[in-house]
Amino acid sequence: MASIAILGFGTVGSGVAEVLTMNQQEIRRRTEEPVELKYILDTREFPDSPYGGLVIHDFSVIENDPEIAVVVECIGGCGVAREFTTRALKAGKHVVTSNKALVAAHGLELLDLARANNRNFLFEASVGGGIPLLRPLAFCLAGNKIEEISGILNGTTNYILTKMIRENKAFDDLLKRAQEKGYAEADPTDDVEGKDACRKICILAALAYGRHIYPEQVYTCGITGITTEDAACAEAGGMALKLLGRVFQVEDGKIAIYVSPHAVPQESPLASVDGVFNGILIRGNAVGDVMFYGRGAGKLPTASAVVGDVVDCVLHKDKRRSLGWGENRPAELADFSQVPLRWMVRSRAGSGAVAAAFGAVTYLPGRKDAFVTPPMGKAQLDALEEKGFSVESAIPVLD
Amino acid sequence: MASIAILGFGTVGSGVAEVLTMNQQEIRRRTEEPVELKYILDTREFPDSPYGGLVIHDFSVIENDPEIAVVVECIGGCGVAREFTTRALKAGKHVVTSNKALVAAHGLELLDLARANNRNFLFEASVGGGIPLLRPLAFCLAGNKIEEISGILNGTTNYILTKMIRENKAFDDLLKRAQEKGYAEADPTDDVEGKDACRKICILAALAYGRHIYPEQVYTCGITGITTEDAACAEAGGMALKLLGRVFQVEDGKIAIYVSPHAVPQESPLASVDGVFNGILIRGNAVGDVMFYGRGAGKLPTASAVVGDVVDCVLHKDKRRSLGWGENRPAELADFSQVPLRWMVRSRAGSGAVAAAFGAVTYLPGRKDAFVTPPMGKAQLDALEEKGFSVESAIPVLD
Repeated sequence: MASIAILGFGTVGSGVAEVLTMNQQEIRRRTEEPVELKYILDTREFPDSPYGGLVIHDFSVIENDPEIAVVVECIGGCGVAREFTTRALKAGKHVVTSNKALVAAHGLELLDLARANNRNFLFEASVGGGIPLLRPLAFCLAGNKIEEISGILNGTTNYILTKMIRENKAFDDLLKRAQEKGYAEADPTDDVEGKDACRKICILAALAYGRHIYPEQVYTCGITGITTEDAACAEAGGMALKLLGRVFQVEDGKIAIYVSPHAVPQESPLASVDGVFNGILIRGNAVGDVMFYGRGAGKLPTASAVVGDVVDCVLHKDKRRSLGWGENRPAELADFSQVPLRWMVRSRAGSGAVAAAFGAVTYLPGRKDAFVTPPMGKAQLDALEEKGFSVESAIPVLD
Repeated sequence: MASIAILGFGTVGSGVAEVLTMNQQEIRRRTEEPVELKYILDTREFPDSPYGGLVIHDFSVIENDPEIAVVVECIGGCGVAREFTTRALKAGKHVVTSNKALVAAHGLELLDLARANNRNFLFEASVGGGIPLLRPLAFCLAGNKIEEISGILNGTTNYILTKMIRENKAFDDLLKRAQEKGYAEADPTDDVEGKDACRKICILAALAYGRHIYPEQVYTCGITGITTEDAACAEAGGMALKLLGRVFQVEDGKIAIYVSPHAVPQESPLASVDGVFNGILIRGNAVGDVMFYGRGAGKLPTASAVVGDVVDCVLHKDKRRSLGWGENRPAELADFSQVPLRWMVRSRAGSGAVAAAFGAVTYLPGRKDAFVTPPMGKAQLDALEEKGFSVESAIPVLD
């Protein structure tokens, strides 16, 4: 018998309880022993929930109960979530979390603590919701030099961009609709400004390159400035608009990492990842391109990933998994403004002025006001604007 | 230091050696100790290969060398491959293989042997080449009841079907071209008759449902009977033609498993998996649909998956991974001929005869000779043919 405790009975926490009950048989077959949900820690009471009787308010009960093998952190944020994770690991519990803010900010410290206590700190649900991603990257692709990761990591923004192209509706209208449908939070800032995608690409980068990269270090541009004109131009060029988190090694071995909307050519498998779905493309020097696709958020998909981690902990109780997050050395990051990218530019400048500024550009079919530049850094583009070249918008093209 | 031995220095075996050398640094970072390729077992000599000095001809040298921690089986087939795998596990070595024939026929026996010796028998490369698939299914999705797996599992046939739709060329011409490009073997029987896909869906089914299913038990129809007319009809209906291996639970809890060409609607993410790529869709009751995409074959992609397994063995030398293949009980299989499917039928019969035979069908746009039937078993379809209804071709539609 393996006993587990859930911290926080919100969307994810209640989803985990639901999946543990609903799929009891399947889980039992895999864990080879029964899994019992013993406690739910929350400040509130849930008298109407079938799990109401499990609710406690004092974390030290969990900390001091030797029967508890796995603690599932679903509180969110970096406050008590961090404190309880730390205390649980020190008390010899495995910890599973879906909390990307916690992992992106404190992953290195918590993995070190887990190692010191010979316990697991697993967080498959923190990136891509239910999509298997971290285990494949850390283990299945361990024989590769990871050349690039480009991911549609946020379902809210992908829903808005998909609808913008299909229905020619403006950002504000679509955000409101996403909120009505429950695809966007009441406060959508982290999603639409790219912060959520940024935390996720930081976690992927750490697993791929063995260096912790902090969200504050990463150039992050969201989709609030994207217009229906941008969508129309991308479509004219046979491209889709996607908010991507990207990380890749540049020539001097430094790591380029950034979040930005991109014009994605139809040949890329990312172009057809629509609506609230996520898609993550990983390019390895042996495997080539692999892509992972599915629902990147939602109660049950996220709970699916959490429960997968719980099963792994139960199956391998005394066998710590080494995720290979790597050493505590700072990452050498490339200056984003110098990373050469092709840009889809909208501009009212005449073709002579465009040629003088950019050299040989490729106009998008049927558009005199939109073209794709040769590779150039954002700094170069900004310099042209400062010199008076008028740019309506500039969005990198995924190559 | 962890020493490994490769059995068989053909395409996959030499790829593994190449990846171990090429990505030495990345592998070292993950394994936390150096990995040394110590022996290559082959009947031949390779005087011109940089690995020529490692070649030996006597398996007992590997079996009796206590330094060898991992044996990589790249011989293929079920003869000596099975013998050496058995002996290696008994000698306390972890074994990694890309050999789908071996796993599909003897996976249960070899996993039992691995368990008895507290060693791993890992075979990520046996399905989907380099695409991470088995670890995600066995671990990340362990909290799900797997409702369905539908996979494009063979690159050769997907290349032929993709070209058939795009270029309107016949099967024989395209097979010849695939052979010239190295996408098809000199003897393509296993690919084009669906046997290769069948072995792979058997392996996925075992991991999903915990029962070993043998390829001989599975209805298998390849693509040799597919014509350009079928491709044209599918396209008229906005569908792509794909050879799919499928497994799902039917109402009475039995497992339906089969391999067949399918007409796949464009809304399915499988429809845009083109050329030599593979795509595997897994539907879980918590996670919903997830898809895995990438190169399903080839020297380096396959070696990527093998080396990922080697890294896992080295990292967790004394920690056996439980893959959850399940108990040694026979699977209860549904009779394929009774599984209700919608069929894309080509027939010269008039609409009256069609309605009399099938009830309400949906004609494909612009075609008087092709329609989609209501759900019905293959047995029902065959019975109509026996009664004299003329069917040119019948291909299941993926719903």
